[in-house]
Amino acid sequence: MFSLHPQLAQDSVLLGHMSLSQVRLSLDANYPWCLLVPERESVSEIHHLSEQDRHQLMDESCRLAEVMVSLFDPKKINVGALGNRVPQLHIHHVARFEQDPAWPGPVWGAVPAVAYGEEALQKRRAKLLSALLGEGFAPAT
Amino acid sequence: MFSLHPQLAQDSVLLGHMSLSQVRLSLDANYPWCLLVPERESVSEIHHLSEQDRHQLMDESCRLAEVMVSLFDPKKINVGALGNRVPQLHIHHVARFEQDPAWPGPVWGAVPAVAYGEEALQKRRAKLLSALLGEGFAPAT
Repeated sequence: MFSLHPQLAQDSVLLGHMSLSQVRLSLDANYPWCLLVPERESVSEIHHLSEQDRHQLMDESCRLAEVMVSLFDPKKINVGALGNRVPQLHIHHVARFEQDPAWPGPVWGAVPAVAYGEEALQKRRAKLLSALLGEGFAPAT
Repeated sequence: MFSLHPQLAQDSVLLGHMSLSQVRLSLDANYPWCLLVPERESVSEIHHLSEQDRHQLMDESCRLAEVMVSLFDPKKINVGALGNRVPQLHIHHVARFEQDPAWPGPVWGAVPAVAYGEEALQKRRAKLLSALLGEGFAPAT
């Protein structure tokens, strides 16, 4: 049975579910940063997924990236499946700006995470939820 | 018309072509590191590709990852589309080991690139070519 890795539970908050994946918002306020976590047991690499799940993951990744572009108008979206520290498959989607603290390097390990204020977190959450709503996305209750 | 970004041409060598993408070997000998470069004009994000190309890219990425796992037996494959410095869409596939110089951080910007010796480069190239050969891969001539 799928259960979320405790580190991912600690570092991010659930926005909702696409057909395959949890959509989560990273709690690092340095960047608009979302995660997809396919709800499949014991999967640490994209190529461990079935062909159908791989294509579904691609569809979900592109949908999430398009939503983030429409909301944040970033210079780049960085998409990455690393998993060196947390083996459960999770795909980072990070909106990058020339003014962000890690630009042009990668975000992972660049600068310490910054916590959201409560209001800022609720605002970002609401903005993402409203843009994600529609076919193929069920918001967390 | 597609033409390869000069920075990618400088930092990597062509192994061959899959249906959508160039398969290239990074010239940084710190890690077994390959790139997929979809031969599509003016594309900087995965979600700029058509739905058919997106799924093809997923298939090619998984094939490449599986080949790298079979050859190098790494602890993890890191897959990432960043593009903060080189805007042309390219997807990194890096075989990671607990003994590598960037572990467990990301490879990008971690330590200076190390050049291959001529023999080591030819060996790695030949190993990858032989594992990639088959339906859906045409080696560079």
